[in-house]
Amino acid sequence: MGRCHANAFRAVAGLFDLPLEPKLTILADATDDLARRGADALGFARFTADWQALIDDPEVGIVAITAPNLLHAPISMAAIAAGKTVYCEKPLSTTAASALEMTEAAEAAGVITMVGFNFLRNPMIRLAREIITSGEIGDITGFRGRHAENYMASPDAPHSFRTDPAGGGALTDIGSHITSMARYLAGPITEVIADCQTIFPTRPVAPGHTRRAPVQVDDMTHALLRFENGAAGSIEANWAATARTLDLSWEITGTRGALAFSQERMNELHLWSGTRGRNGYTRIEAGPDHPPYGAFCPAPGHHLGFNDLKVIEVAELIAAHAGTENPGPDFREAYEVQRSIEAMQRSARSGAWVKL
Amino acid sequence: MGRCHANAFRAVAGLFDLPLEPKLTILADATDDLARRGADALGFARFTADWQALIDDPEVGIVAITAPNLLHAPISMAAIAAGKTVYCEKPLSTTAASALEMTEAAEAAGVITMVGFNFLRNPMIRLAREIITSGEIGDITGFRGRHAENYMASPDAPHSFRTDPAGGGALTDIGSHITSMARYLAGPITEVIADCQTIFPTRPVAPGHTRRAPVQVDDMTHALLRFENGAAGSIEANWAATARTLDLSWEITGTRGALAFSQERMNELHLWSGTRGRNGYTRIEAGPDHPPYGAFCPAPGHHLGFNDLKVIEVAELIAAHAGTENPGPDFREAYEVQRSIEAMQRSARSGAWVKL
Amino acid sequence: MGRCHANAFRAVAGLFDLPLEPKLTILADATDDLARRGADALGFARFTADWQALIDDPEVGIVAITAPNLLHAPISMAAIAAGKTVYCEKPLSTTAASALEMTEAAEAAGVITMVGFNFLRNPMIRLAREIITSGEIGDITGFRGRHAENYMASPDAPHSFRTDPAGGGALTDIGSHITSMARYLAGPITEVIADCQTIFPTRPVAPGHTRRAPVQVDDMTHALLRFENGAAGSIEANWAATARTLDLSWEITGTRGALAFSQERMNELHLWSGTRGRNGYTRIEAGPDHPPYGAFCPAPGHHLGFNDLKVIEVAELIAAHAGTENPGPDFREAYEVQRSIEAMQRSARSGAWVKL
Amino acid sequence: MGRCHANAFRAVAGLFDLPLEPKLTILADATDDLARRGADALGFARFTADWQALIDDPEVGIVAITAPNLLHAPISMAAIAAGKTVYCEKPLSTTAASALEMTEAAEAAGVITMVGFNFLRNPMIRLAREIITSGEIGDITGFRGRHAENYMASPDAPHSFRTDPAGGGALTDIGSHITSMARYLAGPITEVIADCQTIFPTRPVAPGHTRRAPVQVDDMTHALLRFENGAAGSIEANWAATARTLDLSWEITGTRGALAFSQERMNELHLWSGTRGRNGYTRIEAGPDHPPYGAFCPAPGHHLGFNDLKVIEVAELIAAHAGTENPGPDFREAYEVQRSIEAMQRSARSGAWVKL
Repeated sequence: MGRCHANAFRAVAGLFDLPLEPKLTILADATDDLARRGADALGFARFTADWQALIDDPEVGIVAITAPNLLHAPISMAAIAAGKTVYCEKPLSTTAASALEMTEAAEAAGVITMVGFNFLRNPMIRLAREIITSGEIGDITGFRGRHAENYMASPDAPHSFRTDPAGGGALTDIGSHITSMARYLAGPITEVIADCQTIFPTRPVAPGHTRRAPVQVDDMTHALLRFENGAAGSIEANWAATARTLDLSWEITGTRGALAFSQERMNELHLWSGTRGRNGYTRIEAGPDHPPYGAFCPAPGHHLGFNDLKVIEVAELIAAHAGTENPGPDFREAYEVQRSIEAMQRSARSGAWVKL
Repeated sequence: MGRCHANAFRAVAGLFDLPLEPKLTILADATDDLARRGADALGFARFTADWQALIDDPEVGIVAITAPNLLHAPISMAAIAAGKTVYCEKPLSTTAASALEMTEAAEAAGVITMVGFNFLRNPMIRLAREIITSGEIGDITGFRGRHAENYMASPDAPHSFRTDPAGGGALTDIGSHITSMARYLAGPITEVIADCQTIFPTRPVAPGHTRRAPVQVDDMTHALLRFENGAAGSIEANWAATARTLDLSWEITGTRGALAFSQERMNELHLWSGTRGRNGYTRIEAGPDHPPYGAFCPAPGHHLGFNDLKVIEVAELIAAHAGTENPGPDFREAYEVQRSIEAMQRSARSGAWVKL
Repeated sequence: MGRCHANAFRAVAGLFDLPLEPKLTILADATDDLARRGADALGFARFTADWQALIDDPEVGIVAITAPNLLHAPISMAAIAAGKTVYCEKPLSTTAASALEMTEAAEAAGVITMVGFNFLRNPMIRLAREIITSGEIGDITGFRGRHAENYMASPDAPHSFRTDPAGGGALTDIGSHITSMARYLAGPITEVIADCQTIFPTRPVAPGHTRRAPVQVDDMTHALLRFENGAAGSIEANWAATARTLDLSWEITGTRGALAFSQERMNELHLWSGTRGRNGYTRIEAGPDHPPYGAFCPAPGHHLGFNDLKVIEVAELIAAHAGTENPGPDFREAYEVQRSIEAMQRSARSGAWVKL
Repeated sequence: MGRCHANAFRAVAGLFDLPLEPKLTILADATDDLARRGADALGFARFTADWQALIDDPEVGIVAITAPNLLHAPISMAAIAAGKTVYCEKPLSTTAASALEMTEAAEAAGVITMVGFNFLRNPMIRLAREIITSGEIGDITGFRGRHAENYMASPDAPHSFRTDPAGGGALTDIGSHITSMARYLAGPITEVIADCQTIFPTRPVAPGHTRRAPVQVDDMTHALLRFENGAAGSIEANWAATARTLDLSWEITGTRGALAFSQERMNELHLWSGTRGRNGYTRIEAGPDHPPYGAFCPAPGHHLGFNDLKVIEVAELIAAHAGTENPGPDFREAYEVQRSIEAMQRSARSGAWVKL
C-alpha cells in the first residue's frame, strides 16, 4: 500500500492540473534499514525510522499513513497536533471509539483529513451519486450490496493481521467498502442486524505452518440494513467467496429508476429509467463526460484501472490541502463507517437489531 | 394460470414421450357460465360449476387446482379423499398449519401430489442441483438469492388478492420461489430473521379507484438465512423492484466452486471451477445434455421459454401419476416452504431470529 | 420440423385469438406406414402417401411443406395450382431460378404464401425494424451480422443432405437466416463478394462410416455486402463455429443510434441512443409492450423460447389465410434471399463482386 | 500521445523491476517555446527545437517518436543511423514502402525498434496467444474482428490529419490495430479484399468552420482476410460506429475451442473449451497468473486501465534496450501491418482480391 501511495503521488502531476506539485519528501519505516530501502525504491528524498520526525519536518505538509492499523491513531493524533493534513488508509482505527477521538481532534484542530476509501473515487460512482441526488430515480427504497473476494477462500490461508480479533475479519476488512458505498449512495444507516460466520474454524498459525489455531473473526457476514431515508436492504462481506475477486457490487432501487454497479466492470454504470417499450438498463460507459475521467484520457473508451482510483484520491487530497473543498471521506465519515461495522458485529453477538 | 395449465396439458404430448396421454376432461369454475366459457376457450370436453362433481368424476385421474388460494385446501382435501392425484398451484394454502394438514392427509392417503413451483423445472436448475449434489463445488458455504419484480412498483398499483393480509405480500407471493429454490439447492433452512417493509403505505382500493386504503403486507423483504448444512446467506423478495421483471437470481458458493443463475437469462447456468490461470465463470448454455431440454429440440441453442417450464412440470406430473418416481415438489415440500416464509414473517414482527 | 409444425398448429389456438381455428386434417409422408405413424404421433386426423391427394383434399386450406428441399417446388406448384395457401420451410427451393418460378406462379394465382424464416417472428426483431423504420437511429450506415453454429464443427460429422452440392452448405443452410434478417432490417442487397471455405475437405460418407468422401460445399463463408440505401457491411455463415450454438447476431448502425441482437439472448434487444453523459446500450427486455409477446404471457419477464417463434409464425399464417394482411416473408421475399445467396456463391467462385 | 509516453516512462520504475531506470532527458518539439513548455509540463530535464540534436545527445539511449506521421521516417532513420533504440508510434510511416526502408535500415544497423501497438500489451491478449500457440484450441479456422469507435460519427467532425489522403482514414487509423491483432493471434495474412466506404462525403474544413470539403478517405471498411495457416475471416474498421467507443473485439475459432475478447472489457478473456454438459465460454479475469499484471497489483480483481498498457510497453522497451529479448512488435512487424492495410486499400479500388 505504501508503494501504491508513492506511485499515485508520482503519477498525479502528469495527469491532473494541480494547484501544488507533490514531492516525496521523507519516508518513515520501522527501522533505518527498511526506511532507507523504501525511500530508494519509491523515490523519496529522505528517510527516517522515527515517524515523529517525519511529522515534525517543516517541509512536510501532508502525512500519508499506510502503517499497521494499530499505529493509525497515534500517528494521526501527532500529525493533527502538528497541524498537518492527514491522509490515512482505512480502517481509520481499530475501534470506533478511537476513530471518534481522532475525528474530534482533527475537527478541533481544523486540519484537513482524508481516508483511503478509493473505490468511491470512481467516476462511475460519482455519476451514481449525482443521479441519485438529482432525484432522477425517485425516492430510494432499497439497497442491495456486496463485497465478495476469495483471498481467504482456502482453509489453508493462514492467520495474519487480517484474522487478528482486534480489527480483523471480513466485515472489517472489506465490509467497510460496501458500507461506505451504501452510505455514500443511500445515506446514513440507522439500524442493523448481522450474521457473522466463521467458515473455517481453524487456520495455519502462519504461512507455511501446519499447526493450526482457532479463527476468532468472521469469514462471511450477511447483514440487514435500514437507512435514515426509509430505505432498507442488505449487504454481504465475504472473503471466502470462491468465485469472486472483487465483486464490490450493488443495486440501488428508487421509485422511478434504479442503478447497478460491479467493481468487476468498474468502467460501467447501469441506469434503469422507464420509457414505455424501451424499459431496460442502460450500460453507461465511463468517458470524458464523467469527471475526472478526462484527466486520464480525452477520449471515451479508454478505461480506468484500479490504480487510477488512487491517483484520483491523491489529486483530490492535494486540491483539498491547497484550499479547495474537501470531497471526503474525511475522518468523520470513516468513523461513521466504523461505527456501523461495530453495530453489525454487536448485533451478530446479541442476535438482535442494533440502532445507530 | 388456468389457461397456462390447459396449454401445457395440450402441448405436452407433442413434446414428451409419456406413459399416458392427458385429456382435458372437465373444467370447474365458479358459475355455469364461467365454466362453459372456460371449457370452450381452453378445449375441455365438459364443464361444471361444482368442483366436487369434478373430483367425483370417474374419468378424472388428476385434479389440477388453479382456484383462489383460499380454495386450495378444501379442494385438495376432497381430491385426496377421493384418491386422486393432486396438482396444486403455489402457495399450497394460506397458512402453514393448513398446508401441514393437507400434507398429512395426502401422505396418509398415499396419493401423488405436486405443487407448481415451475421455476424448479428448468434444466439449468436441475443441472445446478446435480453439480451441487455431486460435490463438484465442495461444501456449500453461502447462498445469496433474490426474487425481484416490478409489478407493484407503482404506488398506484391497486389492492387485490395480492395485498390481502391473509396470504398476501411480496414474501408470500414471490419470496416463496426463491425460498423453494434455496431449499432445492442448499437444503433445509434452520433459522431466519427478516425485515418486511411496506414501501407504499396506501394503495387504491381497486383498479381505477382514487380512494386509497392502508397496505398491511410487505412490498419488500430482506432476510438472513441459516441452513442445516452450516451455510448461511440472504434472500430478498421485492415486488417494487423498479428495474426488474423476473430477477429470480442467486449465487451459491462452495468451498471448491460456485454457481450463479438468473431467470432473466434462464437458459444459462454459470459454473465457476478453479484452474490456475483459467479461473472464471463458465456460461453453460442449455442443450440436449441437460434433460429434459431434448424434448423441446434435439439441437443446442434453441432456448426454452417460460411456458415450457410448465410443460415440463405437467410431463413430470403425468409420469408420476403413471407410476414413475415423483420428483416433487410435493405437498410436504410446499409446506416446508410455507413454514419458512411464516417464520420470516414472525421474525420480522419480533425483531428476533426464529428457529425452524 | 414436421413435428415442430404440428406442435405449433396445436398450441396456437390456446395462445392467440384467431379468426379461424386450425385442424390437423391430413398428413402426407413417403410411405403409408411412415404417414400413419406420423399422423398418430402428431395428432393428424388422416394420412396419405400421396401428397397430391393431400393438396386435392377439399378440407385442406393450408398446405404446410416440410418435405426434403427437392420436393418444395413440385408440392408448392401443385398447391398453388389448387389455390391453396402455401406454407413452405426454407429454403424455398434448391435454386433461385426455381424459387422465382414458384414465386411468379403464386403471384399469378393470387394465393397466400409464407416461408419459415421463424427468427424474424421474434418480437424483439420486429421492435428493431420499427425502430429503424421510424428513423429513431437515423440513416443506416452499417450492418454486421453472423449466423454461427457448431453442428458440423467436428471433422467426423458425416455427409447428409446438408453437404449435398445441390442446395447444401453453411451459407445456404444458415446463411439464409442472417441474409433474410439483413434484408428485413437494412433493406435490399445490391452487391456482394464472398469467401466460401471448406474447413474439412472430407467427411464420413454417412453416420458411423469410416470411409470418407470429399466435401463440395462451404463450412464457413464470410461476405461483404452493399445495400440499396447506401449502407455496407459483412456477414458470416459458419456451421463449424466451435463455440457457438445459435449465434444469429448482428449490430446495425445508424447515424443517430444503433441496435444489437443475438439469438443467444433472444429476449433482449440492445438500443443505443445518445444522451450526453448517459450514452450506452439499453438492454430492452421482451414484454407485453412488444407484440405478440402478450399472447404468451400478460406480464413482462416471462421469456419466449425458440418453439414459440414457430407458434407466432403459424398464428400469422392463419390470420393471413383468413384475410388479414400477410406480414411475410412470402415466396417473393424467400426468392430474393435465395438470389442473394447464389450471388455470394458466384462471387466466391469468380473472386469478384457480383451485382444483384 | 507525448504526454502519455512521458507519464508511462515516469510511472514504469515504480511498478516494474527494471534493469535500467529511465530518465526523461530531453524533449524536442517544433519550436523552442513549445519544447520548453512541454519539457516543463512533462518533467524533462532539457528541451530542444532541433530533433537531430536530441538524437545526437550522448545521454540519450532511446528515442521515442510521437511526432506527426510524416516525421516518423526521417527521425527514425536518423536515430537508426546514430545507433539508438527507436520507439515509434504507429503508423510506422505514411507508406509501406517507406516503412520497409526504415525496417531494412534498422535491421542492417542492428538497432532495437519497437512500435506502439499498445493493445497487444494486455495480459489477456498474451494469454490468448499462449493458448493458441499451445494448441489448446486446435487448428485455427476463423478470425472475426473489429475496431469500431465513434469519434468521427458526426458528419460535422472536421477534417484533420486523420482525413489527410496521405496516411488517413479509418482503416489506417484504427484498422491497423485489429490488423496487428489478427496477425499476432492468427499469423500472417496472405490475401485480402476490402470495401472502403466514405459515409460522410464532406466534412468542415477545420474545427468551427461551416465551409465543407470533400472527404477522400474511408469512414468504414469491411474486409475479408485469408491467413497463411488456412484460416479465413473478416475485419471491420469503423470510426463512425455510433454506438462504440473502443470496440476492438474479436473471436478466433479453432477446431477444439475458441477465444473471444473485447477491449470494452479489457480485463476479460473468454475461452471456450468443450466438456460434455459443461460447454460454454469461461470468462477469465485478469490476475497475477497473467504477467505482467502482477507488476500493478499482487492480488486479482484489481483491473488494469488503458494507460497501464502503455506502461507495460515502456517496461518491455526498456528491458529490450537493456539486452533482454525484444517481444516486439518491431519495425518489421509494423511494416507487415502497413503492407496488409495498403493491400486492402488497393483491393477496394480494384474490386479484386489482392495477394500479399
